[in-house]
Amino acid sequence: MSDDGLEAFDSLSAGKRIDDDANYQWRVAARPVANVVPSDFRWTVTDIPEPRDGEVLLKTHYLGLAPVMRFYMQGTGAAGERALEPGDVIHGRGVAQIVKSRHPDWQEGEMVQGQLGWQTYKVSAMTAQEKFFKMPKNGLPAALGSGVLGMTGLSAHAGLFGCGDPVQGDRMLLSGAAGGVGSMVSQMAAHVVGCEVVGMAGGAEKCAFIRDHGCSQAIDYKSEDIEESLDALMPGGIDLYFDNVGGETLAACLDRLRMHSRIVLCGSISEYMREQPFGLVNYTRLRATESRMQGFFVYNHLHKWERVMDDLAGWIDDGRLQPVQDIEDGFQNMPRALANLYYGRNVGIQCCSVRGEPEHWN
Amino acid sequence: MSDDGLEAFDSLSAGKRIDDDANYQWRVAARPVANVVPSDFRWTVTDIPEPRDGEVLLKTHYLGLAPVMRFYMQGTGAAGERALEPGDVIHGRGVAQIVKSRHPDWQEGEMVQGQLGWQTYKVSAMTAQEKFFKMPKNGLPAALGSGVLGMTGLSAHAGLFGCGDPVQGDRMLLSGAAGGVGSMVSQMAAHVVGCEVVGMAGGAEKCAFIRDHGCSQAIDYKSEDIEESLDALMPGGIDLYFDNVGGETLAACLDRLRMHSRIVLCGSISEYMREQPFGLVNYTRLRATESRMQGFFVYNHLHKWERVMDDLAGWIDDGRLQPVQDIEDGFQNMPRALANLYYGRNVGIQCCSVRGEPEHWN
Repeated sequence: MSDDGLEAFDSLSAGKRIDDDANYQWRVAARPVANVVPSDFRWTVTDIPEPRDGEVLLKTHYLGLAPVMRFYMQGTGAAGERALEPGDVIHGRGVAQIVKSRHPDWQEGEMVQGQLGWQTYKVSAMTAQEKFFKMPKNGLPAALGSGVLGMTGLSAHAGLFGCGDPVQGDRMLLSGAAGGVGSMVSQMAAHVVGCEVVGMAGGAEKCAFIRDHGCSQAIDYKSEDIEESLDALMPGGIDLYFDNVGGETLAACLDRLRMHSRIVLCGSISEYMREQPFGLVNYTRLRATESRMQGFFVYNHLHKWERVMDDLAGWIDDGRLQPVQDIEDGFQNMPRALANLYYGRNVGIQCCSVRGEPEHWN
Repeated sequence: MSDDGLEAFDSLSAGKRIDDDANYQWRVAARPVANVVPSDFRWTVTDIPEPRDGEVLLKTHYLGLAPVMRFYMQGTGAAGERALEPGDVIHGRGVAQIVKSRHPDWQEGEMVQGQLGWQTYKVSAMTAQEKFFKMPKNGLPAALGSGVLGMTGLSAHAGLFGCGDPVQGDRMLLSGAAGGVGSMVSQMAAHVVGCEVVGMAGGAEKCAFIRDHGCSQAIDYKSEDIEESLDALMPGGIDLYFDNVGGETLAACLDRLRMHSRIVLCGSISEYMREQPFGLVNYTRLRATESRMQGFFVYNHLHKWERVMDDLAGWIDDGRLQPVQDIEDGFQNMPRALANLYYGRNVGIQCCSVRGEPEHWN
């Protein structure tokens, strides 16, 4: 994909800035057809809302970006959130500080993460649907709450441990290894469990990156023949495949399973960019090898939140998990940061610094 | 499919009979293109072979038939057996009596089951590859060793219990419910575990049959719209799908999964009859429901043999498992019995009585 599409976002950001005197928002202007384009977004400025009894006022510091956001905008309501209509503020989880509270359970000054939407302030009754959690006071940067210590971290942990049942020595294949979930899964699999991880990423730069983040071998899917590379790097086959892309890569993996292999279906970004959905013919290969293909969805794992965050923070502390977030600076650049995901440019978790670290939160 | 193809087998059987004075065999004459036709088979008569040291002479009583046999004949070597060449005796497991033994572990007079091939006598060194087991002396008919108390029974048990993890109250869908594996799975799921089983079969007669064998509801896939019937009979969705057919039925099931559902991939006879393989698009539905699709292959479960046979014989004794074998009489009719499987005519396990029950075996 060329860069042209991404450069078109420069004029969308140009001249926009935020301040503390108003609520700045990005809304759906039109439903994206394929990848998002600048005209899909609308910038609005409103008054900062006032919380009523049982509500709080949240001030946004960081917002995370995820491929699923395009589905929200397309109105397909994927992944546990309400489908958006043109005119709606775009969904987005992130880190905020409570600047006013009329809610007994949430105190002024507390840092939280949850569903904020693409806006610089939000009034919320902190409903279950918004999935707010208090940020742990562990001295780590607040930015991590929009990714590594947020829903992306929970995804990576739930997918790898809750679904993949990794064992030391497993020969693991990981697609989307340079992405948000991928860059965490590779490090946890290699450094926490002791798997031998072969990662897939697009381009020499990303392949170098994933070799520094848990992958002992890298396959550049843009320049290599995936089947040939798998045969060369994993001649004995695959014990565990963590699938972030679906499609032909999944099919290639099904043809190379070892006995009792596990396939974790996490994402299928290749499907998002495809006009005709991919039909998986060789799913029957699960039979001869007694293998399983299992899906998971992060919102079904919320009950593990505290334990998972403790795990992740501990591994960051002891150096086994290096947090990788690709931070776009400035709320005005949110649309470009989202488009960036589909161009396969970002490394690690894509997020946006709306107004940087808060002065006090720990 | 019309009957014409099946009637063509009458002239193949005509005038053929077996006796104890020779070894009668069915061999591959030509590789089947789609379904088997009479000209794919060749009848040969040879001398009864003589066992050498370490070998036994086996006299065949029953042979089981399975859809996979066509793959053997086509030379694709599916399902753990060597691919056949034209001229080879066709693979087939069944029940035999040892009539001469020069092997220390196998005694004259013992009844065994294992890989006999389509022939009335066999000399064997009883290798691991042939997977011979002694028939249990439980007073049950020897014929059951070619099906219910044979590899079909092990398949049904390993698939349901080893792979499906059924729980009392599970809403279970079972395709191929009138078939060999299916008619056992339905009864074990309903009467041993306490699942609510909806079965699928072709035609009113088979649907009546499966309602008498564990299924509380039946879907006639030949006359009903599968998706409509599933919505009507299983409005809350599916906890467990035991898949004997693959294709569109599997896809319909994936769209109707409950949380933490399990799909057991046992067979895909619909694939055997299809010119273009079916591409499964909605495998991604495993994600939102945290479901898994798992395959198994019976030869990986041989270590469970004795325990499984004890289970099955016990359930036959207490009436929870009614053995259903569709016995074709006469070795000369083996080709027709195999073709019958693809015409969807048989109910229960298809087998052939080569020379009936032995006089003494228990």
